[in-house]
Amino acid sequence: MLRVIVLLSGGLDSATLLYSVLKTGRVARAVSFNYGQRHSVELSAARQVCAAANVSHTTIAIPRLSDALPNSSLTDRRVAVPEGHYEEESMKATVVANRNMILLAIAAGHAIAHGFDTIAYAAHSGDHAIYPDCRPEFIRAMRQALAWCDWNRIDLETPFSDMTKAQIVTEGHRLGVPFELTWSCYKGEQQHCGKCGTCVERREAFKLAGVPDPTRYAD
Amino acid sequence: MLRVIVLLSGGLDSATLLYSVLKTGRVARAVSFNYGQRHSVELSAARQVCAAANVSHTTIAIPRLSDALPNSSLTDRRVAVPEGHYEEESMKATVVANRNMILLAIAAGHAIAHGFDTIAYAAHSGDHAIYPDCRPEFIRAMRQALAWCDWNRIDLETPFSDMTKAQIVTEGHRLGVPFELTWSCYKGEQQHCGKCGTCVERREAFKLAGVPDPTRYAD
Repeated sequence: MLRVIVLLSGGLDSATLLYSVLKTGRVARAVSFNYGQRHSVELSAARQVCAAANVSHTTIAIPRLSDALPNSSLTDRRVAVPEGHYEEESMKATVVANRNMILLAIAAGHAIAHGFDTIAYAAHSGDHAIYPDCRPEFIRAMRQALAWCDWNRIDLETPFSDMTKAQIVTEGHRLGVPFELTWSCYKGEQQHCGKCGTCVERREAFKLAGVPDPTRYAD
Repeated sequence: MLRVIVLLSGGLDSATLLYSVLKTGRVARAVSFNYGQRHSVELSAARQVCAAANVSHTTIAIPRLSDALPNSSLTDRRVAVPEGHYEEESMKATVVANRNMILLAIAAGHAIAHGFDTIAYAAHSGDHAIYPDCRPEFIRAMRQALAWCDWNRIDLETPFSDMTKAQIVTEGHRLGVPFELTWSCYKGEQQHCGKCGTCVERREAFKLAGVPDPTRYAD
């Protein structure tokens, strides 16, 4: 499989995935989504990462999708972004209903229309507790569905699905990922807030990996 | 499973599906998609069918999706709508890459966000030759993916997957489906053209079923 679409949110996991795909020498295109997320600043992070990696980048616009999927703090400004640790019950407010299936499905359509044969997606083991659509069972089922959705199979690569975020930071550090360009914070303000679940997880991952964290946190 | 989202294109298959779901006494909501299709007149057909059936109807807007999925005659005005029989090679120009996975994924997100537990979808046996994402293998894989995409499973009902379009017409006739309100033609002009693959298939289905065809064809 030689032509890969990398789902790139602009966060550190998918940026590391992009660098690891590029290292295999395959043709890669990064695809990001504007789905009405509050932290759309991640899209400009994605652009900057692609510029640094010298890889082509497409942003697919589905901005009104959030009207159909209300009640997530990521897309609905009436719902506050929870603070605290990622595994807490309150973090469930950050679930966007079926987001990953939607993004994978559109990415696969884009792949089919443009002659790519593989989708790479950076779900990791730390996501499972909060996001049902990061679980291994979901990924397995999607792998099957993507194998049948077109006359030629579309492969789904999820090399981080058994890795922790700290292990991803270690891997990204090894690959020279420009972590300073990546964006995690769900609040999407000027700086990383340092308090929301994804900021807490980001900080912790750098600390556990023993890699210097280049992020400037507001707190 | 008591609350059903019916994927309603505005065509006769999905209108029949809606009526058959309503007959089971479950709560139903019809969901249609504006995905930049040339024959967006089908959306007003969908609205009229829902008004006749007295069922709630939501149209989800993803109009710029077609930018990401070029080269289909259904969404790209540079590509002509092929005429002739549905099973001919030329009809492949009507494939929108991975459309059904995308629509099912968004419908499932809408179901999760609004407390529905089932998606009903009117793929039928005549679709298999042209549309890879109507094949039984695809449907089976999507059923699994939908079972795992949220903490509670989303069921996928495809009661027509082994039926011909003529059998669907027979069933719709029995259920009192207002076929005159439904829309099939891919050209999306004032009247059904009578010549494109889906018009040819529609005509044939009424004839084979021995049900009067209320459609006014331009030819």
